[in-house]
Amino acid sequence: MKRSIATVCLSGTLDEKLDAAASAGFDGVELFEADLINSPLRPDEVRALADARGLTIDLYQPFRDFEAMPEPDFRRAEAKFDVMEALGAPTMLVCSNVSPHAIDDDALAAAQLLELASRADARGLKIAYEALAWGRHVSEYDHAWRIVERADHPALGTCLDSFHILSRGTSLDTIDAIPGEKIFYLQLADAPFLSMDVLQWSRHYRCFPGQGALDVRGLLARVLAAGYSGPLSLEVFNDVFRQADPCRTAIDAMRSLILLEDEPLPEPAALNGFAFVEIGVDSPEIEDLLRAMGFAHVGPHRSKPVQLFQHGEIRVVLNHGVGEDDPEVVAIAVDSSDPDASAARAEALLAPRVERRRGAGEADLTAVAAPDGTAVFFCGPDWLDDFLPTGEAESDGVPIERIDHITLAQPFEAFDEAGLFYRSVLALEPSASAELAAPDGLVRSRAYAAGDVRVVLNVPALASTRERSELQHVAFATSDALAAARAMRERGVPLLAVPDNYYDDLEARLGIDTAPLRELGVLYDRTPEGELLHFYTARLGGRVFFEVLERRGGYRGYGALNSPVRMAAQTGGERHAEGAGA
Amino acid sequence: MKRSIATVCLSGTLDEKLDAAASAGFDGVELFEADLINSPLRPDEVRALADARGLTIDLYQPFRDFEAMPEPDFRRAEAKFDVMEALGAPTMLVCSNVSPHAIDDDALAAAQLLELASRADARGLKIAYEALAWGRHVSEYDHAWRIVERADHPALGTCLDSFHILSRGTSLDTIDAIPGEKIFYLQLADAPFLSMDVLQWSRHYRCFPGQGALDVRGLLARVLAAGYSGPLSLEVFNDVFRQADPCRTAIDAMRSLILLEDEPLPEPAALNGFAFVEIGVDSPEIEDLLRAMGFAHVGPHRSKPVQLFQHGEIRVVLNHGVGEDDPEVVAIAVDSSDPDASAARAEALLAPRVERRRGAGEADLTAVAAPDGTAVFFCGPDWLDDFLPTGEAESDGVPIERIDHITLAQPFEAFDEAGLFYRSVLALEPSASAELAAPDGLVRSRAYAAGDVRVVLNVPALASTRERSELQHVAFATSDALAAARAMRERGVPLLAVPDNYYDDLEARLGIDTAPLRELGVLYDRTPEGELLHFYTARLGGRVFFEVLERRGGYRGYGALNSPVRMAAQTGGERHAEGAGA
Repeated sequence: MKRSIATVCLSGTLDEKLDAAASAGFDGVELFEADLINSPLRPDEVRALADARGLTIDLYQPFRDFEAMPEPDFRRAEAKFDVMEALGAPTMLVCSNVSPHAIDDDALAAAQLLELASRADARGLKIAYEALAWGRHVSEYDHAWRIVERADHPALGTCLDSFHILSRGTSLDTIDAIPGEKIFYLQLADAPFLSMDVLQWSRHYRCFPGQGALDVRGLLARVLAAGYSGPLSLEVFNDVFRQADPCRTAIDAMRSLILLEDEPLPEPAALNGFAFVEIGVDSPEIEDLLRAMGFAHVGPHRSKPVQLFQHGEIRVVLNHGVGEDDPEVVAIAVDSSDPDASAARAEALLAPRVERRRGAGEADLTAVAAPDGTAVFFCGPDWLDDFLPTGEAESDGVPIERIDHITLAQPFEAFDEAGLFYRSVLALEPSASAELAAPDGLVRSRAYAAGDVRVVLNVPALASTRERSELQHVAFATSDALAAARAMRERGVPLLAVPDNYYDDLEARLGIDTAPLRELGVLYDRTPEGELLHFYTARLGGRVFFEVLERRGGYRGYGALNSPVRMAAQTGGERHAEGAGA
Repeated sequence: MKRSIATVCLSGTLDEKLDAAASAGFDGVELFEADLINSPLRPDEVRALADARGLTIDLYQPFRDFEAMPEPDFRRAEAKFDVMEALGAPTMLVCSNVSPHAIDDDALAAAQLLELASRADARGLKIAYEALAWGRHVSEYDHAWRIVERADHPALGTCLDSFHILSRGTSLDTIDAIPGEKIFYLQLADAPFLSMDVLQWSRHYRCFPGQGALDVRGLLARVLAAGYSGPLSLEVFNDVFRQADPCRTAIDAMRSLILLEDEPLPEPAALNGFAFVEIGVDSPEIEDLLRAMGFAHVGPHRSKPVQLFQHGEIRVVLNHGVGEDDPEVVAIAVDSSDPDASAARAEALLAPRVERRRGAGEADLTAVAAPDGTAVFFCGPDWLDDFLPTGEAESDGVPIERIDHITLAQPFEAFDEAGLFYRSVLALEPSASAELAAPDGLVRSRAYAAGDVRVVLNVPALASTRERSELQHVAFATSDALAAARAMRERGVPLLAVPDNYYDDLEARLGIDTAPLRELGVLYDRTPEGELLHFYTARLGGRVFFEVLERRGGYRGYGALNSPVRMAAQTGGERHAEGAGA
């Protein structure tokens, strides 16, 4: 189907918005009236600009506060029809009246919309009438449809908007009763569940389908079943998108639509956990740390300044060729049952390919770039052959077994974009967002998981003008956290110190004996499903640290309750180190 | 009265919070439990640290989900009493139960609180019971008081919290009926009016009294009248404060309390408009612009690299000794009927003094620094004598008369702080916040005014990781915007171009003849009170531009409706200039 995006979704000036929409592959746009009013381009120039970029102008929107008025303003409407003719925009969105002067009278609304449609029709234009969720007398789509049906004019149809419908929880049954050709337009938006005034919710927190909590997919199926054949058009008001790079937002938007349409998207290949995590480093200290954690240096890469370390199923690749500053996670690799299929899906979802130099006979690893620049590799079984064996043996004294999850700090503007990237490209399922209180601000955290592939994205709840820590970590699963902590301590691994106050509170809250935890600095959480025991290494001088965690029973979380104490300890440690260095 | 602040108001680690509270002059703190739990300091070490800083620990908070339970957890309470003894904290805040297991039974709640109070009393501790606005069965302060009254124990009192009370709109009448000595604690917080879930509102959007819309002053008067004599204590959960510099936040908090208490704060002196605005410049171009706008070069300063330009009542000081980059507003000066009184009030409100070099015989101008670093001068009549007259005459062809307002872009974290600064130090009254859609994001705008002194503060709705324009402007009042625009155009003042689409829309909406406006690039707004005609100069290469505005009738706004077209034109112009330069 044709894909369209409202200009209000994108930041920038109108020409920048059109450029962004075209470069992401959209077929058309909804022109948001303010974007035209604020532009120095005349309507015919906008039309030419859109034309030159292969974009149609599918909708002119919104025309407000028109129907059910004591004196409907046809002069204003005719002036906007002039603009639409110059733009080549076939359809005007009329949203339900919010004026205090509006009259609660469906017959009047229908009569005035009929007159409007006749005037539009005389110019070859159409009117799509939509219920705003906060309309004064018309706030449900089925009500708007009844008015359209009553007016009964071929140039008058309805516009359905997933946010306005799903935010109110209106039954979708009436959709089946609307003839497909009377649905003139379909606007799609998702949103997180928020308990707030629906207008504010709509104006600030909408997001692209797949980023929120609304069943946009279910609604789309109903609308298509009703016979709708117009554009799938995104209309998202979002404070972050308003200030983000419009080209990135447009790609994010297109990815959302591709995922929503499903076909002809290649199926995701089954993933069997993480193949490796790659850390960019410029110092050898991390090698000592990995050995102290029981890793063996499996060997150097055949042709690159890259070293592989392994412990059980955990593989850590140290790349001395990237990472000019402090150590950071530069790539994650999933073990795919079909790397080519994984890569094809990623490509279909517009993930940018990462090109890496490859020597003769070396494995052809496909990688794509996540929104924060992290490379995501799709590995089959043969990539290990690229490393020359040293014969070094793993130490068996540290019981850590595999990568449980990888937590990546995201740039503020990329949180939803990154979430949709992992959700679509790797077919990971999101869990609910958590909010973590760090000493330097609130952090939003959301996990995306499928089987043993778990990625946790962290982002500050608000961007800041102050510098602050944006940490990453790799969490290793163990079947015995206490033994792992003891072994690491004995082997000289620097572990994060946990305050005694934490254990005092744990005892007060849960009445458990915390002595073994306290001795080793192991944190604890329990839910009805199970228990979590976990601990952290100190930071590697840069953004990266490691976690070791033991999941008992059906514990599925990530210890969010303990994140504040961890973050405070890291901040305190950092300040202490700064003080000592000064 | 004693002044206290909850540690949760401030960012940082616990020791940083204590430092900040002490340096702002607080007498005590409420210790937020998580701040202790996350700290490596033992309770006795925290007590010593607070002691050394002259701070008492007035409250340990919160103790949650205790009362009206099938099995109240006295073990947990006793463990917290141990902590309180080590801290030297006399009172524990028990907030009303939110657990699904809580029973709706006031007699049970009273009996369990009575037992808790007896146990506290045995250790010389006290219990302050507070209704959370979202408590499961107890959510109103008068309900909490009835339970306290029923339990009737000398170690059990109530805690009143202005947010919990005012957010629900509970009648304040019961306050008069509570004996003062049974009000064990008073927590003060303000908040903007938001139509959202009260828990989210409370957790993220509280602010200091005077920054929001709640009548904290009225509530305080009732509580004092009831005989309360404990600390005035601020408890504010605010996402921005959580990430701002804690020392600045603590000063902001203290300023809020000083303003709230009123005495012995010196009365504000009457202000008679702006004496001058000072712009830091490193190039002579702005002098040409000012002359083109009809200004005369009155003269150089006796001893500083500073030039005074004047036009009618408008005085612009160009300072060539500051402003290393682009032109920016570095100072605003108000004409005070009593500069010494103004300075005394500013000092009492903790405004930092700005020291400027002064030559012999020169006016002793007192200045303080606003949160964004802008200097605020208090001028009497004699400051003009510091300039050596050139004899240059003003041009009388440009009808601009006085400074109407000055709009300053604020750093993201300083919006509420700056607002309270102007509200308290200059006794300006805030208007409602407006939200303006700029091409690179939403901007929050709020005006503060008294008589002819009007300061408008703009800040991005969200901080950004991308660079963006943070513009300042000085608006000149005229009695004839069209004549002023015509004169300026004839004299070669570069004016901001306004899109034709804007005028087309204006005609469509209002049915007015826009030809005279369109010809000169003058914007228009009207309200039931009056009309606004205004236009802008192009930018001076830096952050600064000028506005000229004509207020007709009782128009009191700032043309917020037209800000998006202005901001889009500025962004477009800037990008165009960048393109041309490349």
